[in-house]
Amino acid sequence: MKQRVPKPAGTPMRVAFQGELGAFSQEAIRQLLGDRAEPIPCQRFDQVFAALKAGDTDAAVLPIENTLAGSVHENYDLLIKFDFEITGETSVRIVHHLIAPPGVTFRDIRRVYSHPVALNQCLDFFARNKNIERITFYDTAGSVKMVMAERPAGGAAIASELAAKNYGGRILKREIEDDRQNFTRFFLLEPRGSKPRAARSGARATRSGATAWKTSLVFSTKNVPGALFRALAVLALRDLNLVKIESRPLRGKPWEYLFYIDLMGHREDQKVRNALGHLAEFADFLRVLGSYRAA
Amino acid sequence: MKQRVPKPAGTPMRVAFQGELGAFSQEAIRQLLGDRAEPIPCQRFDQVFAALKAGDTDAAVLPIENTLAGSVHENYDLLIKFDFEITGETSVRIVHHLIAPPGVTFRDIRRVYSHPVALNQCLDFFARNKNIERITFYDTAGSVKMVMAERPAGGAAIASELAAKNYGGRILKREIEDDRQNFTRFFLLEPRGSKPRAARSGARATRSGATAWKTSLVFSTKNVPGALFRALAVLALRDLNLVKIESRPLRGKPWEYLFYIDLMGHREDQKVRNALGHLAEFADFLRVLGSYRAA
Repeated sequence: MKQRVPKPAGTPMRVAFQGELGAFSQEAIRQLLGDRAEPIPCQRFDQVFAALKAGDTDAAVLPIENTLAGSVHENYDLLIKFDFEITGETSVRIVHHLIAPPGVTFRDIRRVYSHPVALNQCLDFFARNKNIERITFYDTAGSVKMVMAERPAGGAAIASELAAKNYGGRILKREIEDDRQNFTRFFLLEPRGSKPRAARSGARATRSGATAWKTSLVFSTKNVPGALFRALAVLALRDLNLVKIESRPLRGKPWEYLFYIDLMGHREDQKVRNALGHLAEFADFLRVLGSYRAA
Repeated sequence: MKQRVPKPAGTPMRVAFQGELGAFSQEAIRQLLGDRAEPIPCQRFDQVFAALKAGDTDAAVLPIENTLAGSVHENYDLLIKFDFEITGETSVRIVHHLIAPPGVTFRDIRRVYSHPVALNQCLDFFARNKNIERITFYDTAGSVKMVMAERPAGGAAIASELAAKNYGGRILKREIEDDRQNFTRFFLLEPRGSKPRAARSGARATRSGATAWKTSLVFSTKNVPGALFRALAVLALRDLNLVKIESRPLRGKPWEYLFYIDLMGHREDQKVRNALGHLAEFADFLRVLGSYRAA
């Protein structure tokens, strides 16, 4: 791993994300860190983690769940494989537009490229336009970039307005997503022990202030009846509010699971500390992934 | 919907599955229903459900979770959207082979086609063979069929031995999966109120016998602190063993969830009946998906 050299004050943060410029992750970076942060595109999620580990970037921003598609399980797995701290979260409303090169009209469109999740969120559009084929592509913004560069016959892309702007595409149909209640939640990850970014920007609320905090943790228990119930009791008996639970398979132990939990509260709050201590008494494995301001 | 006409005795069951012939689902069908069942291939999971709904098949077999990749979330969502009964489960060990047309040698291989989950389960193979490109395909067995029919230059597929046999492919490298603890669990689905298939084959164990039963259910609760804890208490207080919990986003209610639970016991067992009654007292939504013999 490279030596981390302190940056001169005022140097923009470099932030790794998956996708091409114009991806929804870039909007999440802007929401979390402002316009000065420099987005560094990576093709795959594991490359985002690897870039942060190598010190090539200062932070990473990753989608963790979508209100329609559910959790991004690959990123849950990578959170364990790497060991970064979650230092922020934000929520981005997902709006899908049909985008094509200038001069191409809607009647010309025969095939639409996009990420499979985006294609699946525009099923009504495809039901209304049965002559249009859906073709999966690795990225929403990347599909605009490709359509603009390669101009496949009758080709269009589904992506954000930012992607259309970035690559000079024209929006042929606006807001073609099936469901407006379409939000993606993103995590900001930084190396453990980093100076909190919020403190750097001078905007950090005091922990005792009005800001709501969340804590994310992951644990596994012995495979005995009632084990998960006991783990949740540790929170419920202290009136701690569980806001998300996710299970992932435990490698090498078929049909056993890791549980990822988000609860309201900061890891330094007395009740949360007590709960974590209590959970550690009987968990086989326990790791706090971070405490951060709730979006 | 078509009228279901009783079949003459001895007619083989028609069973829909996703993928091409030679898919791991076909092995699951064999394990669940024997060699006489007729596998009916469908390209997508929703088409499997639609085929059963239309009465085009008598049953469906669907992967629900893999010990490495986790749950097949799309099928969890389809279990709710459609309303079939889970009448069986089985577990298939996943073994991946590198398959190419006869005459092609390993040194010729430049690109390997398969389902993304299969490609991701052979990462060590790709790390050792950096000159080989991975290309995602909609199906493991389908990738063998394509490679045999179209013979793309330097092309091979990753799939099962059954797929190699089915399409006349040659296995160039055996068992290239990273992890031997690779199993997929499948559900057998039938229309509600079907005569249990096990009874048809005469093999059904009595419920009071030594066979272990599982019950799958899905519920949502009001979004209040401790709601999931209370739902699990309903089981734990009756010593009912929870073996799987899965959460999925609730459409139209951002950051709220449906919970899918598998517990040991039959829905007609007194303790399970009491627990279901108790859960119904405070669940917003509750549906029993089925009781079936544990694999």
